[in-house]
Amino acid sequence: MSQILKPEPLTYERFLPFGDVIEARTDKAFGINQGYTDRFHHLASIQLDDEGSGIISLFRGRSRDYPLPITMLERHPLGSQAFMPLDNTPFLVVVAPPADTPDPQHIRAFISNGYQGVNYHRGVWHHPLLTGAPEQDFLVVDRSGAGNNCDEYYFLPEQIPLLVT
Amino acid sequence: MSQILKPEPLTYERFLPFGDVIEARTDKAFGINQGYTDRFHHLASIQLDDEGSGIISLFRGRSRDYPLPITMLERHPLGSQAFMPLDNTPFLVVVAPPADTPDPQHIRAFISNGYQGVNYHRGVWHHPLLTGAPEQDFLVVDRSGAGNNCDEYYFLPEQIPLLVT
Repeated sequence: MSQILKPEPLTYERFLPFGDVIEARTDKAFGINQGYTDRFHHLASIQLDDEGSGIISLFRGRSRDYPLPITMLERHPLGSQAFMPLDNTPFLVVVAPPADTPDPQHIRAFISNGYQGVNYHRGVWHHPLLTGAPEQDFLVVDRSGAGNNCDEYYFLPEQIPLLVT
Repeated sequence: MSQILKPEPLTYERFLPFGDVIEARTDKAFGINQGYTDRFHHLASIQLDDEGSGIISLFRGRSRDYPLPITMLERHPLGSQAFMPLDNTPFLVVVAPPADTPDPQHIRAFISNGYQGVNYHRGVWHHPLLTGAPEQDFLVVDRSGAGNNCDEYYFLPEQIPLLVT
């Protein structure tokens, strides 16, 4: 029988082994611009190897059918990758800790409240974008540069977890 | 009499002297994730000096009263700074080309359509955040590191332009 993955609410503490949660945390805030702006400072660090540079892109994702078999995960060994929803809509995140191959027993699933983004740290295994709407746009901050920056791992049939909503 | 600044619609071409427009341009798109995602690739580059690293923050801006006297501009000499609205609401951008001091005759004002963000290139003079709503959140990508990365310039009273909406 397949392992069932039920998304848990995304929090900073729970996501620490995988990366950063990008959200308006009051403990990170201070005023700038003569009081007209609150800056929630340095919520995520852009991680790069020596050959890479940081770039900004947009991703437009389309929804999948659930329950969703998690047949594969990917990782970016040379840089972090951040996703921020642009319409305040919840979305799903499936991750596994850095390792040569992702351990199916250590996969975690999270749901963003729609005002939270995530920054996957270098080497963290994660599922490609899982939208919370039929079509959903995200700002993405990741790496450009020489070298292979995407590994994919496909699970054996008996290892495939099932993501429920 | 004060110079009047009337915002013009933000376009990639018009903003070239100042930085990048972050928007879903079809000429930058390709499919990824087995067809479930369109990637609008490398819309902006994160510019950094050798001492800096890229960080992700959130800004929560509050609105100002208009017509708004543009009493000052600022610039970040060591890195780019990107702003992306998180609620699809238009906002205003006031810029001047890189120079030792901003030339009041070369100030330009733009309005984002709410689906467009901007990335100010290193050294581009710009006004602090001008929201299009009483309160508005933005994802911000800029630089952390040693050194002074913010210069401010205050105009002489007779140079101050008036931003109208």
